[in-house]
Amino acid sequence: MIIDCHGHYTTAPGGLHEFRDAQLAALRDPKLGAPSGDPHISDDEIRESLEKAQLKLQRERGSDLTIFSPRASGMGHHLGNEATSLQWARACNDLIYRVCQIYPDNFVGVCQLPQSPGVAPARSAAELERCVRELGFVGCNLNPDPSGGYWTSPPLSDRQWYPLYQKMVELDVPAMVHVSASCNPNFHGTGAHYLNADTTAFMQFLTSDLFKDFPTLRFIIPHGGGAVPYHWGRYRGLAQDLKRPPLEELLKNVYFDTCVYHLPGVELLFEVVPAENILFGSEMFGAVRGIDVRTGQYYDDTKRYVDALELSEADRHKVYSANARRVYPRLDALLKKNGR
Amino acid sequence: MIIDCHGHYTTAPGGLHEFRDAQLAALRDPKLGAPSGDPHISDDEIRESLEKAQLKLQRERGSDLTIFSPRASGMGHHLGNEATSLQWARACNDLIYRVCQIYPDNFVGVCQLPQSPGVAPARSAAELERCVRELGFVGCNLNPDPSGGYWTSPPLSDRQWYPLYQKMVELDVPAMVHVSASCNPNFHGTGAHYLNADTTAFMQFLTSDLFKDFPTLRFIIPHGGGAVPYHWGRYRGLAQDLKRPPLEELLKNVYFDTCVYHLPGVELLFEVVPAENILFGSEMFGAVRGIDVRTGQYYDDTKRYVDALELSEADRHKVYSANARRVYPRLDALLKKNGR
Repeated sequence: MIIDCHGHYTTAPGGLHEFRDAQLAALRDPKLGAPSGDPHISDDEIRESLEKAQLKLQRERGSDLTIFSPRASGMGHHLGNEATSLQWARACNDLIYRVCQIYPDNFVGVCQLPQSPGVAPARSAAELERCVRELGFVGCNLNPDPSGGYWTSPPLSDRQWYPLYQKMVELDVPAMVHVSASCNPNFHGTGAHYLNADTTAFMQFLTSDLFKDFPTLRFIIPHGGGAVPYHWGRYRGLAQDLKRPPLEELLKNVYFDTCVYHLPGVELLFEVVPAENILFGSEMFGAVRGIDVRTGQYYDDTKRYVDALELSEADRHKVYSANARRVYPRLDALLKKNGR
Repeated sequence: MIIDCHGHYTTAPGGLHEFRDAQLAALRDPKLGAPSGDPHISDDEIRESLEKAQLKLQRERGSDLTIFSPRASGMGHHLGNEATSLQWARACNDLIYRVCQIYPDNFVGVCQLPQSPGVAPARSAAELERCVRELGFVGCNLNPDPSGGYWTSPPLSDRQWYPLYQKMVELDVPAMVHVSASCNPNFHGTGAHYLNADTTAFMQFLTSDLFKDFPTLRFIIPHGGGAVPYHWGRYRGLAQDLKRPPLEELLKNVYFDTCVYHLPGVELLFEVVPAENILFGSEMFGAVRGIDVRTGQYYDDTKRYVDALELSEADRHKVYSANARRVYPRLDALLKKNGR
């Protein structure tokens, strides 16, 4: 069984965008009023949006199950206020729930949090709990920069985040550290902001005692860990200079996905990071949609790169399945219940 | 001959710090008055600060010449105002000049610019010209984020930067893209802010027509290019999706150093980036000062990693010497004048 830990509903039907557009229009002109009820989306529209995209690629590339969350760049936590983010997160998460109901063998849900700049992360705990307890989700995407590229929130090691971490620990769910769109003209979203956030989060973990306070808290750093594996020696040296524990200590709580779109990068990832800490992920449909004109293959078909490595059967099993089931225990329980 | 393109005067004598402290104290309490004149530093103090550090490591590691600039984290463009930055840049650059006068065989100068948040980059052109024409410097460090981690300036592709680029082109000097200290608690300096800035700058170049407007403008992206080589496939794919020219076009103007502190990272760099675009650099004395307890070697002895690669003699020559002489033509002229 092959689990893809990183998939987004980037192909959601137009009704979702109409809902968001109405929400944002009402922010600009309160006379318009925020949309009420749910986005207008039929089950057939959901099927159509997935059959030709994520499900087609699952079949073609040979993965079985995607840990599926709302479009990351669409979270837009910097827009509006807490009420905006809560309404939008609920709408996006409810839509993911419907996807998982229609295709229970193919998708398991991970939620978007109703974060908003200046609002305590504790305020996101209720939506996380709803998604896990009522919708059967197995984790969340946590945005380390709800400001969208101005980095005005406290670092992930700050105690402001602790109530949310307490809820994560209580529910036994991990978070993928994932920013949303950048509204800072300096940062291209998928080409800079995403990778910078990954790098930044790792260094925040390295310099803090967060995991002493929460020994079972788990984070997945996506996009192959940003710059981290490439600069593994820098991080080992910084940990040593700063009299921090060796990186291996961090690896009890921090995991990386395989969203690195070329073989040399994936080779490096597996050379420096233990297989125990790598979860297969493709980010599809995602950051890079094209076919490489030189190879005729999709850039984001990361399974091809992983398959090209000379992994032991044990490591292969970890990366494609066992690690995900360990990091997301609720996924494991769900799969076991279904005899998978 | 082995040229190290990336060295900072991180061991400058205490007189420089006293000067800066007085400057910053006067900002807090104008009654104190800004320091006048130059920092109090003797030639012997300069010799002592270098003999036991950079010069010792040059000898031990076997490099001949370092392209030398003021301490990057000390630039602190976010502190004070334009006058503060100008006075501080002049003091730091004049000190580098003295270093290069005392050790003309070992150091060639690169200057700090008097950038300040909200101040037009054009205002840095005069100090660049002074350093190049009067002090014999061969390039500059250009800070893409003078705000120190809040990224409030326009991207490097913005026309606000053009007058400074015009001066660089006129003087035929390149810039190393190099941020200073971070005052944003989210970003550790050497563990996040530096690498993020490298990644960010590359994507700004990729998405702009800057090098159409300045075909001879040259940038060195330090720290091995941040996250860029590790994510080379992502950047190739993004360039294709965004209908931008292939990355090879960018490589006419953009170079990377070798400040990657482990062999797998340096191997990856050379696997994806042509040898024509890699300049040997160590960042010493720099970001990571320790000795790896596992190998007994300094993390930042990047020459060991480059030497461990199976490079052709031609590529080795490019990386250690020829590329630096090509990217810094004033360095080449200086060396030729001295029969080197």
